[in-house]
This record gives sequence, C-alpha cells and structure tokens, in this order.
Amino acid sequence: MVERLSEEARAAALAQLAHWTHEPARDAITRRLTFADFNQAFGFMTRVALLAEKADHHPEWSNVWNRVDILLTTHDAGGLSQRDIDMAHAIERLLL
Amino acid sequence: MVERLSEEARAAALAQLAHWTHEPARDAITRRLTFADFNQAFGFMTRVALLAEKADHHPEWSNVWNRVDILLTTHDAGGLSQRDIDMAHAIERLLL
Repeated sequence: MVERLSEEARAAALAQLAHWTHEPARDAITRRLTFADFNQAFGFMTRVALLAEKADHHPEWSNVWNRVDILLTTHDAGGLSQRDIDMAHAIERLLL
Repeated sequence: MVERLSEEARAAALAQLAHWTHEPARDAITRRLTFADFNQAFGFMTRVALLAEKADHHPEWSNVWNRVDILLTTHDAGGLSQRDIDMAHAIERLLL
C-alpha cells in the first residue's frame, strides 16, 4: 500500500520541485510544458510514457500541439505519494 | 485557407462517423476511447501522432491510463473543417 504524504513531507518535497504546482482539490501536482512544436511535445510524452510504464505509475495528461499538461497523483493513496514525487523528478531529469 | 463546414455538410459527415459527437460550443468533434491498458492506449496515441504530424493537423487530447479523449477542430477555420472529418476517418481506420 502506498501512503499519502503528510503535509510536512509534501511541503518538503514541493520545495525541491520549483516547476510543479500543488492542486489541493485533487491533492495532485501539475506542470505545464511548452515545446517548439508537436514533434518535440509528443517526443517528450513518449519518453514520459516509457518512464511511467516502467514505474507502473501513469500521469493524467493532455496535449494541444506544442503544449503538454501533466497531473500526478496516486489513486491508491487518495492523493499525493512519494511515487508522484519520484515521477516528477524523473520528468525533470528528461528536461535537463 | 481551410473552410468551416456548413451545417448541411457537417450533418452529412457526422452521419458517417457513428462514434463521434459534435460539440457545438467549440464546433468540434470528440471521441472517447477505452483500451485494455496504458500500453494499448499510448500505442494508439503514437499511431495517431504520426498521422497528425503527416497531415499537419493535430488533435487536442488527453489520456488517463487506458482512456484517451480526442477533440478535433480546425483553429484556422474557426470550427469543424473537412480536415477534421478526414482525420476522424483516419483514426477509425486505425481501430479496425
């Protein structure tokens, strides 16, 4: 069972994720990314899809041409868990 | 310049697209698809992405695990055009 992060743990984790926003209604974290074009945006999504499948932890996301909106939360935990934080960091590493 | 479909042309086109719904607010067509799992859903998205890039006509879409929601409209036309109808048929052919 995956545990939902405490308020303190969440605050500490978010302090390390400058580009991510906490969405209290879902207890989720979100990030919007804008790329040069669709090729770049979907190429990025494909890399995230491979990460997500490997981790068995999948984003909720949408794409409109060069824009990708990502939301991470853990349904089993009823909110944000360490798995979301780990996935957010893995996504950030793709963007370096 | 891509022309927006007339009401008559739109009705005739939609009659051939049983799985698509007209969304009047956007003058768009939408379809929700559910697959066995994320692998199948993202595999499908990748095939659509290749079609979209080739046609230079891209969907607005979202994915949550095994579910994909697609919206087609033509920004340049201010609503639905033949390009959306063609893309919807191309997507249907992927699903045969």
